[in-house]
Amino acid sequence: MIRAPYFLYLGSTADPLSIKTSRGVAMFRPEDCVGEFSRPPGNLTLGLPRMDFAEAVAAGAKTLVLGVASAGGALNEELVRDAEAALDAGLDIAAGLHGRLRDVPRLVEAAERNGRALIDVRDPASDLKVGNGRARAGKRLLTVGTDCSVGKMVTTLCLEKAMRARGYRADFRATGQTGILIARSGVPLDAVIADFISGAIEQLSPERHDGGWDLIEGQGSLFHPSFAGVSTGLLHGAQPDAIVICHDPVREHMRGLPHFAVPALEDAIAANLQVARLTNPAVVPVGVALNTSALPADEARDLCARTADATGLPCTDPYAHGADLIVDRIDECFASSLPGTSRSA
Amino acid sequence: MIRAPYFLYLGSTADPLSIKTSRGVAMFRPEDCVGEFSRPPGNLTLGLPRMDFAEAVAAGAKTLVLGVASAGGALNEELVRDAEAALDAGLDIAAGLHGRLRDVPRLVEAAERNGRALIDVRDPASDLKVGNGRARAGKRLLTVGTDCSVGKMVTTLCLEKAMRARGYRADFRATGQTGILIARSGVPLDAVIADFISGAIEQLSPERHDGGWDLIEGQGSLFHPSFAGVSTGLLHGAQPDAIVICHDPVREHMRGLPHFAVPALEDAIAANLQVARLTNPAVVPVGVALNTSALPADEARDLCARTADATGLPCTDPYAHGADLIVDRIDECFASSLPGTSRSA
Repeated sequence: MIRAPYFLYLGSTADPLSIKTSRGVAMFRPEDCVGEFSRPPGNLTLGLPRMDFAEAVAAGAKTLVLGVASAGGALNEELVRDAEAALDAGLDIAAGLHGRLRDVPRLVEAAERNGRALIDVRDPASDLKVGNGRARAGKRLLTVGTDCSVGKMVTTLCLEKAMRARGYRADFRATGQTGILIARSGVPLDAVIADFISGAIEQLSPERHDGGWDLIEGQGSLFHPSFAGVSTGLLHGAQPDAIVICHDPVREHMRGLPHFAVPALEDAIAANLQVARLTNPAVVPVGVALNTSALPADEARDLCARTADATGLPCTDPYAHGADLIVDRIDECFASSLPGTSRSA
Repeated sequence: MIRAPYFLYLGSTADPLSIKTSRGVAMFRPEDCVGEFSRPPGNLTLGLPRMDFAEAVAAGAKTLVLGVASAGGALNEELVRDAEAALDAGLDIAAGLHGRLRDVPRLVEAAERNGRALIDVRDPASDLKVGNGRARAGKRLLTVGTDCSVGKMVTTLCLEKAMRARGYRADFRATGQTGILIARSGVPLDAVIADFISGAIEQLSPERHDGGWDLIEGQGSLFHPSFAGVSTGLLHGAQPDAIVICHDPVREHMRGLPHFAVPALEDAIAANLQVARLTNPAVVPVGVALNTSALPADEARDLCARTADATGLPCTDPYAHGADLIVDRIDECFASSLPGTSRSA
């Protein structure tokens, strides 16, 4: 587990896209964040108290989250200098950059000197096992997508919030770097050795006997020729009882691949169910999550309604409109047939 | 490239299964093998001249192939001592064990001292890229399977032999450790990072303009819940024009998983075609390869005939009966429509 509370690093950038990871943590785990760090000319804010490292420690922070993207994912001199100062102030450092903290001797020395931890969230655990596909206790939901970067993490987190609000025990299980920083643990699935993809998910979401749900963050897409292997192993390891399909209605082609079309929603649902049935023949789709941020509000609501009609599934933009419609369907499909077992209340 | 000719190591074992890798090399690349090494109480032979390391070097050997399985895949004292002696005699060492040659200081020192190479065929190249799914020139055939260990490598090699005999340019492309030792190069796909599965195959089988075929060794099975992610990425990276499905007719359940049934051949063909179509919509099945080694000869031939009737595909045991029936189908589907371009003769 990465230690909370967090202190979020924004650095000196003025590019809002480059602080995506810090923003994700602030949005979905505000209770874990005591403040933010930026330095001139950086003028970005996540609305948290701005402080220095010593003030953050005084405010209770345990870990500096380097939730910024740098050119090529490298650790530049400014980032290293700030991280070293944070270690000297008494913070652990967590980062999801391609360049690893542990490969920077200055940081390794500063961590040792201060008895602090360096956490590279792109490093998978070294004790992963091959999956076995054996049915295990507990309920699982997996978000899947027509493409990469269509809102699977956000949808999963919105579902966690909506299900908890309705009394479910429901826990987000992270498979990507931002998700891992939000959940404080998880599996960086894209960095796992190919033989262990499904096994890593079996370990991430082991048997569960409290009547609750694991909500597993999806990755990639069965229709993305670069990453469908990851998505396949994830489906098999998750053995989901329910899937939610995530879709970006304005995406013109598969991410990074102008020569690949985005699949039809119905085809994507059918393909995901077919793959999922290998380890859970009872899997059902319980909703469609659209990222409508690029659409006017009335058009967004209209599109959700039409998509629901076309697919027979509840459809919502979970970030803009909440995930309640999907939780209603989960209620119908699971809770009503298992009274008292799926709810904690 | 691993340097040939090879000298094959059998060690001191009396267990024929444990020399599977050395046997595979001797079976499929006899022209690359100058001799074999065994020591008491080992009484196994691959029918090659038995010699010591100095004699092997004198006979032209460049590389000692440690094609043996040891308990847990570790490098035991005897193996290390023999490998060191082989390095001192002037041989490179190639191995596909879980324990890496490069992690044994004595071997690293001996290799440096003698200017020789240590080749761990389970180590993927460090410069792998993410796949892009873009159509590339050349013809490709991929062997797929209803399960793991049903003869995909053997089938691919038998196809290479049969196609070459008929004048095709056809080259085996290896994705597993024994295959890599046979081909002298390749990608150990199960050890590749998840994000690079399809990209690794795109690099293994780049565009080809000589009218010839790449015959790509399959791995795993879409129906094996431990490894289907690897098989999916392999299908997408290979973008095969043709697939051959391999099957073990006496397999009672999925390998290592008594709780998983082997799929019906027809279902496995359909699922593989569906996944393959993402990167090659024109993919066709050209044959079924059965491993009939556990059946009486008449029963084997009868089963092949019945399987051909049921699937509408040529069916053979390529190791026992040759792969000509499948090459006939390749002729029909490809060569006749592309006169002069698919044959080297």
